[in-house]
Amino acid sequence: MNPSVSIIMGSTSDLKVMEKAAEFLDSIAIPFEINALSAHRTPAEVEKFAREAAGRGIKVIIAGAGMAAHLPGVIAATTPLPVIGVPVKASLDGMDSLLAIVQMPPGIPVATVAIDGALNAGILAAQMIATGDPAIMEKLIAYKAGLKQKIVKANEELGAARYHYRTN
Amino acid sequence: MNPSVSIIMGSTSDLKVMEKAAEFLDSIAIPFEINALSAHRTPAEVEKFAREAAGRGIKVIIAGAGMAAHLPGVIAATTPLPVIGVPVKASLDGMDSLLAIVQMPPGIPVATVAIDGALNAGILAAQMIATGDPAIMEKLIAYKAGLKQKIVKANEELGAARYHYRTN
Amino acid sequence: MNPSVSIIMGSTSDLKVMEKAAEFLDSIAIPFEINALSAHRTPAEVEKFAREAAGRGIKVIIAGAGMAAHLPGVIAATTPLPVIGVPVKASLDGMDSLLAIVQMPPGIPVATVAIDGALNAGILAAQMIATGDPAIMEKLIAYKAGLKQKIVKANEELGAARYHYRTN
Amino acid sequence: MNPSVSIIMGSTSDLKVMEKAAEFLDSIAIPFEINALSAHRTPAEVEKFAREAAGRGIKVIIAGAGMAAHLPGVIAATTPLPVIGVPVKASLDGMDSLLAIVQMPPGIPVATVAIDGALNAGILAAQMIATGDPAIMEKLIAYKAGLKQKIVKANEELGAARYHYRTN
Amino acid sequence: MNPSVSIIMGSTSDLKVMEKAAEFLDSIAIPFEINALSAHRTPAEVEKFAREAAGRGIKVIIAGAGMAAHLPGVIAATTPLPVIGVPVKASLDGMDSLLAIVQMPPGIPVATVAIDGALNAGILAAQMIATGDPAIMEKLIAYKAGLKQKIVKANEELGAARYHYRTN
Amino acid sequence: MNPSVSIIMGSTSDLKVMEKAAEFLDSIAIPFEINALSAHRTPAEVEKFAREAAGRGIKVIIAGAGMAAHLPGVIAATTPLPVIGVPVKASLDGMDSLLAIVQMPPGIPVATVAIDGALNAGILAAQMIATGDPAIMEKLIAYKAGLKQKIVKANEELGAARYHYRTN
Amino acid sequence: MNPSVSIIMGSTSDLKVMEKAAEFLDSIAIPFEINALSAHRTPAEVEKFAREAAGRGIKVIIAGAGMAAHLPGVIAATTPLPVIGVPVKASLDGMDSLLAIVQMPPGIPVATVAIDGALNAGILAAQMIATGDPAIMEKLIAYKAGLKQKIVKANEELGAARYHYRTN
Amino acid sequence: MNPSVSIIMGSTSDLKVMEKAAEFLDSIAIPFEINALSAHRTPAEVEKFAREAAGRGIKVIIAGAGMAAHLPGVIAATTPLPVIGVPVKASLDGMDSLLAIVQMPPGIPVATVAIDGALNAGILAAQMIATGDPAIMEKLIAYKAGLKQKIVKANEELGAARYHYRTN
Repeated sequence: MNPSVSIIMGSTSDLKVMEKAAEFLDSIAIPFEINALSAHRTPAEVEKFAREAAGRGIKVIIAGAGMAAHLPGVIAATTPLPVIGVPVKASLDGMDSLLAIVQMPPGIPVATVAIDGALNAGILAAQMIATGDPAIMEKLIAYKAGLKQKIVKANEELGAARYHYRTN
Repeated sequence: MNPSVSIIMGSTSDLKVMEKAAEFLDSIAIPFEINALSAHRTPAEVEKFAREAAGRGIKVIIAGAGMAAHLPGVIAATTPLPVIGVPVKASLDGMDSLLAIVQMPPGIPVATVAIDGALNAGILAAQMIATGDPAIMEKLIAYKAGLKQKIVKANEELGAARYHYRTN
Repeated sequence: MNPSVSIIMGSTSDLKVMEKAAEFLDSIAIPFEINALSAHRTPAEVEKFAREAAGRGIKVIIAGAGMAAHLPGVIAATTPLPVIGVPVKASLDGMDSLLAIVQMPPGIPVATVAIDGALNAGILAAQMIATGDPAIMEKLIAYKAGLKQKIVKANEELGAARYHYRTN
Repeated sequence: MNPSVSIIMGSTSDLKVMEKAAEFLDSIAIPFEINALSAHRTPAEVEKFAREAAGRGIKVIIAGAGMAAHLPGVIAATTPLPVIGVPVKASLDGMDSLLAIVQMPPGIPVATVAIDGALNAGILAAQMIATGDPAIMEKLIAYKAGLKQKIVKANEELGAARYHYRTN
Repeated sequence: MNPSVSIIMGSTSDLKVMEKAAEFLDSIAIPFEINALSAHRTPAEVEKFAREAAGRGIKVIIAGAGMAAHLPGVIAATTPLPVIGVPVKASLDGMDSLLAIVQMPPGIPVATVAIDGALNAGILAAQMIATGDPAIMEKLIAYKAGLKQKIVKANEELGAARYHYRTN
Repeated sequence: MNPSVSIIMGSTSDLKVMEKAAEFLDSIAIPFEINALSAHRTPAEVEKFAREAAGRGIKVIIAGAGMAAHLPGVIAATTPLPVIGVPVKASLDGMDSLLAIVQMPPGIPVATVAIDGALNAGILAAQMIATGDPAIMEKLIAYKAGLKQKIVKANEELGAARYHYRTN
Repeated sequence: MNPSVSIIMGSTSDLKVMEKAAEFLDSIAIPFEINALSAHRTPAEVEKFAREAAGRGIKVIIAGAGMAAHLPGVIAATTPLPVIGVPVKASLDGMDSLLAIVQMPPGIPVATVAIDGALNAGILAAQMIATGDPAIMEKLIAYKAGLKQKIVKANEELGAARYHYRTN
Repeated sequence: MNPSVSIIMGSTSDLKVMEKAAEFLDSIAIPFEINALSAHRTPAEVEKFAREAAGRGIKVIIAGAGMAAHLPGVIAATTPLPVIGVPVKASLDGMDSLLAIVQMPPGIPVATVAIDGALNAGILAAQMIATGDPAIMEKLIAYKAGLKQKIVKANEELGAARYHYRTN
């Protein structure tokens, strides 16, 4: 089965952050691929990747990078596909990466998520595909319901602990 | 024809920024609606809007707000649709709005664009819908080609001017 | 006895910070409750909580959250009660959370304290209630006097140490 | 009738910002006073003011200042009353003033609102007093309803304009 | 005569800033060319430019761009020539552009100058070429001497004015 | 009469800011001199100035500069006299200049005042000299009393205006 | 012997930073005292201290504090003596403390040193006193010479190590 | 053989960062020297170094420093050689050092690299010299090809790992 989402990272050292996107896509059975390609060290490969992605059946690209993070914008410059950018924290608390990804000029958007926010990148990719795929939309609705259950349960556990504070 | 994209802004004073998204969608014939709803002043209306949007056939929501900009995140909390956030510059050069939109916690993404970047929000909405709609993909490819022509032409005009500098 | 103050946090992981507010309220015998509710993962519960709080006899709400911290503002949007916001440090040294809480638009204030400043949130809640409750005002005056004693005593202990430096 | 709220500003040049607090209090008939007192130029007067405020029947103090804004914290150090701090924008986009007001150490809270957010300071003062005064609570509920009406009406006006964008 | 320096800017709107580099090179008779090429709107042209520059006899590239300024880094990724980056102020006081240019990852340097510092980019290009060209070095030494004369003269003019202040 | 204070600025364009220091010193009859010397354009002159200042009877040096403001630190490196640094706002709201002046390494202090705070630099210079000169101390005490009178008078004028707000 | 310099810190937890000032003054035999006094927890004591310091023979005050650091400014408001402010790093990398100390309004200077820069505060205090005391000036000149010797020696040690790198 | 590149650091404690530049130059056989010289503690030595460097055959200077990092700018003020500045992270995440190095005023450029980016400083120095030395240009082209190989190989290793994620 061809991958629908392509996850790209600027360096294999970003894997620990970026695998959160992969794990989410895996959990809702969206096929994906994951590779390291650097806008700065392998520019020709990045250009080739971006030019060919749509033709290979990729629907959404997730790109993560740190510091002067050019990878998401460089890919977005060449592909008509939506590109999700993940600012990876490598210096300056990730502020350099965030600004280098989100502040794209008019004409070339990058859909930016939080610093190190790869899980949300995975969810966002699924939401994009779900605009044309009702089965994935169902899975997202179920995921959202699960988020609520988790906090409800955490709150119940907190309940036991909190009687220590409560005055009656 | 039902709107596919819903543009929401926190205040009608954001219209001047947000209408760039509307103009782009109009230019490629994606039907849309545009409204002002405040996460802080009309919270019940925002909640109702977010709960009902998918059922009304909306595919993507674009939400713009300034300062402690909660609107995009609050909508994303309730809808399974993808939400694009536009940080509107109202104070602190827009940095407060950018951080209040992009730094969403795990589980609830907002696809953030540049400060005052509503044109890119419109393009991104079209890219999302194009994942399931080849006709819109064609229009996006044509738009991208147009971007290139504009800068090529601007460069030619610059050419005349630049001989002033060139030493031969 | 009904709680007068309701402490809400966006995630149970914020408990370590937020329990400082609870401990203070406990120390001056103001009844309180403490729960985890997320503006993003349980929005309907947050809305219900905010709508009903005044009717249940709550007088002040303390809400803590990190990153794009929407919880205090979202609650303030629905309740007429005063809401105290505690920016919890989770990324960017807490600056994202601080701006997302304090920069509320005109009409919907959130009384913001320092990053991770939950103790001060507890004191501030007591000060608010004391505007209509002289007994609590007395306790606050006593607390303030205690603060002074602590630093006076610490200074005396420093006194012993400092002779090492003093030249006579 | 004695004032319930005392508005203090570090310099008469802050009046244009701070009068928004006064206008709100006036609009809901909470008696107030407004004065300029500088933590740096009239420290003894500030100390006397803070020491005597509770005894004069003041219930809430609103203090606004710019740059290294010490006024709210200095007042809070001496009075047991709740102190609302308004960071006034005078340099660095108001970031210096915001940090100098909100980052109070444990023990001495200042309830901080947005940069130049004096209207919200007025509302917050009313909310504090309303914890012990049901009549003021009623007025705040009416004010909140009015906020909603304003945005509903603005949206209707926008409605006329937006047909320009809508594709049908 | 072939150009030795190629000045590239992301948009013709950057010309007003970037022409300072051109004027300096013109003043010391270093042949140059100046063009607009966008990393985001004309990525293939940028790649071709960067790949061919050294072969055409270019010795130094000056690249200016604003916002998420990828142009200097993208060029540096493909050429072995030294690339000077000029952060152009377009938003956030130029901080986004500065970080997106200077924070390059290990292996691919961009020689960054001040925000809007195109004159310094021109001087730096000349200094680089002067490492292998004694005639240009002579011109730079003369330029440096001229800088000193300007401030000495300005000081003399100040001298007349300053007697107003001096107490004798 | 020999000058006791030497005011130096990095560029004559800083005169408008720096003359506030001169005016204050003039007002309390401390003899001074004022010159433009650039750490970057006239380094040898700065070095000579710093080496000779103490020998000429100068007691305090005030140095103002913008951007990467090295002038105060460079002078402090060579003279044993106290150096007061004035960050001049020229870019980035003056934050670059502030950090480049105040963050001096251990061993070489620069007494830094607020951005564009040249009046305070003048006062601080007088305070330093007053540690050994009781006559100047008297003048400073009188100046401080004057500051109080100004705000008292401004407050009285405000008094007339504020009855508009007061509810009685 | 009476102290000439008074070192004040907002909390005894700042001692580890502030004792660097004490050690320097001790090393050049300037008598000093060191105490903890909080602008927020012991405001009356701070006011009394500032009012009486000059009369007790104190010539310079060094005040260190963190977060919303009001202590140096509050002391400067009451005393005519020069006040040196040390921003202590407690949150936000010390940026809150730096801005709360350095950005004093016109009329009330605080001579600010680097974040945690207490050693420089001690040197600066000595430099101020040296404006009227030639013996201390001699010691400062000797200290400066010592700084140079340390780096010369460190460089020699580096010399041995660096041959590893040098190509000959 | 005479050194072509001179590496200077403000303190021997910067060696760990700065030796990356040395190692790169060593790897491509460009002769260099490395020394510690402080703009603040040994200003006369810095001035002498900068004045004599070109005459000794140095072609490029690399200068690294932290905090209020004046060393690169001070050297650039005196030499006509190109100066590369390395902001060393010592406080404020290196932002103070970055701004103190990159924001040089018109006329005196410093070629700034990333915070702690000494490897890139070494590469940049080689690129500068390569403008007049084809043999070094060859080595740089080989180095660039090596960068690509490293990421290609890392990606292959990632390939094995990534099948864990891929859905087929």
